[in-house]
Amino acid sequence: MKVGLIGLGKMGLNISKNLIDHHHEVVAFDINEQAIEEIKQYGAHGTTNLNELVQSLDHPRIVWIMVPHKVVDQVIQDIKPLLSDGDIVIEAGNSHYKESMRRYEEFKEVGVSYLDVGTSGGMEGARNGANYMIGGDQEAWVIVEPIFRDTSVKKGYLYTGKSGSGHYLKMVHNGIEYGMMAAIGEGFEVLEKSQFDYDYERVARVWSNGSVIRSWLMELTENAFANDAKLDGIKGIMHSSGEGKWTVEEALDLQAATPVIALSLMMRYRSLETDTFTGKVVAALRNEFGGHAVEKK
Amino acid sequence: MKVGLIGLGKMGLNISKNLIDHHHEVVAFDINEQAIEEIKQYGAHGTTNLNELVQSLDHPRIVWIMVPHKVVDQVIQDIKPLLSDGDIVIEAGNSHYKESMRRYEEFKEVGVSYLDVGTSGGMEGARNGANYMIGGDQEAWVIVEPIFRDTSVKKGYLYTGKSGSGHYLKMVHNGIEYGMMAAIGEGFEVLEKSQFDYDYERVARVWSNGSVIRSWLMELTENAFANDAKLDGIKGIMHSSGEGKWTVEEALDLQAATPVIALSLMMRYRSLETDTFTGKVVAALRNEFGGHAVEKK
Repeated sequence: MKVGLIGLGKMGLNISKNLIDHHHEVVAFDINEQAIEEIKQYGAHGTTNLNELVQSLDHPRIVWIMVPHKVVDQVIQDIKPLLSDGDIVIEAGNSHYKESMRRYEEFKEVGVSYLDVGTSGGMEGARNGANYMIGGDQEAWVIVEPIFRDTSVKKGYLYTGKSGSGHYLKMVHNGIEYGMMAAIGEGFEVLEKSQFDYDYERVARVWSNGSVIRSWLMELTENAFANDAKLDGIKGIMHSSGEGKWTVEEALDLQAATPVIALSLMMRYRSLETDTFTGKVVAALRNEFGGHAVEKK
Repeated sequence: MKVGLIGLGKMGLNISKNLIDHHHEVVAFDINEQAIEEIKQYGAHGTTNLNELVQSLDHPRIVWIMVPHKVVDQVIQDIKPLLSDGDIVIEAGNSHYKESMRRYEEFKEVGVSYLDVGTSGGMEGARNGANYMIGGDQEAWVIVEPIFRDTSVKKGYLYTGKSGSGHYLKMVHNGIEYGMMAAIGEGFEVLEKSQFDYDYERVARVWSNGSVIRSWLMELTENAFANDAKLDGIKGIMHSSGEGKWTVEEALDLQAATPVIALSLMMRYRSLETDTFTGKVVAALRNEFGGHAVEKK
């Protein structure tokens, strides 16, 4: 199929190559001319002009948006006037599902189908076999299914139903990821403080082969320790990019008890600070009622 | 090699068959004659007499204990007088590492090497390729390595160093498992309370193929939903068998912050009760200060 792909960042570039590997025709847009040059050499048409991208597509046009979630609305604002009845927009970034549902309604008004696609598997997946969770109109889904089938791993895509359900599922996937990663991290915390002298790369390797906790995350843990045996080169600061927070906010709205995922998120926030106000308050209180020592600045 | 295997429960029976598949000679002991009969038909020697088991082994004798951790000491009491200098005892159940270190010292007094082995991978692993973490004397380890290499999956065993380190690593493995399982459970909790209508078997399947959270636990989740689409047939009561608690106790001793694993454990305890005293106290307090309604029995 012919796909207009907007956004040649780390994910977009790899998905474009993956599409081309599977004999799809890619017309790529980016403002970064170097990225355009790279994908052209790989066999795509490339342009820094959105008009040109849209005009070069066949009806129904298929436009795949693969940009950071903060610029999705801006891209939509630019592309929406150029599309028409029957066209299909695929938004495969990490958008909030409520935003996707809103955008779906806005595109519906002009007869354009909007699919919200959660993409997992990282850059390696985008390049060689991604994982997709797709929400939106089934009629549009049926048309574009081949491009998802071709660029995903086997059994690695799922049409999840009505608009929003794709990004919702990806959000919850990331919430689970937070909890899993926290558990792995805490396990190694215990090992590091223990009386035993473990080789963490070997530990992660044995846990990756035949154990109950074998997982892709454990394989990545093995890689990390292979590169830096005690992770001496990095700090334990855990940033986050939104989906964990969204999962917890959703759980609060639903009154769903998800304490482990919520705490995983809070511990990421804790890691961003070298000291906490909580700590000062508790230390001061111990001093107030019991005369316990406080550590002065 | 010739191995005396004590305990033909679910794990011991499968490991015995696995050993026989790899051309090792198994002399099995159990008080259950039916289990003895089954393993005899598979090619082992079987006995309900511990003396007979020990006498039929070659020097250095290799005795593999595969029994529930509560009866390990009883088995040891029976077998210890029968063993002599140079013999090797493998204890591959879920013992606490401190118990293993104590037993190691006790066996050392009579010249017997004691290896503490954490075994993971479940029954399926025991049968077709297990995962082992082995602590104890390296000289003993070198002798028995072939039986672990043969009965594990590729890269699925690790000699972890001094006595106790094998069971310690298995303990922490299970702590991580608690956190991972809680995160998975909570993710599906959100899906179940959401506005969307997901097919959980399909969700677990797509998450098992190419996603960041792909893992053996997610594959087991797919199996569970394949058997019972909404798990209507079971209650959400989460029992535990000790290792999660031990991990948290160890973290407390080490002053290692492991809140996610600790909370996973506490939520298991919460699941054992239909109502809580905590809840009564909080409800009563809301009523005291704010006149908020309490639900009467």
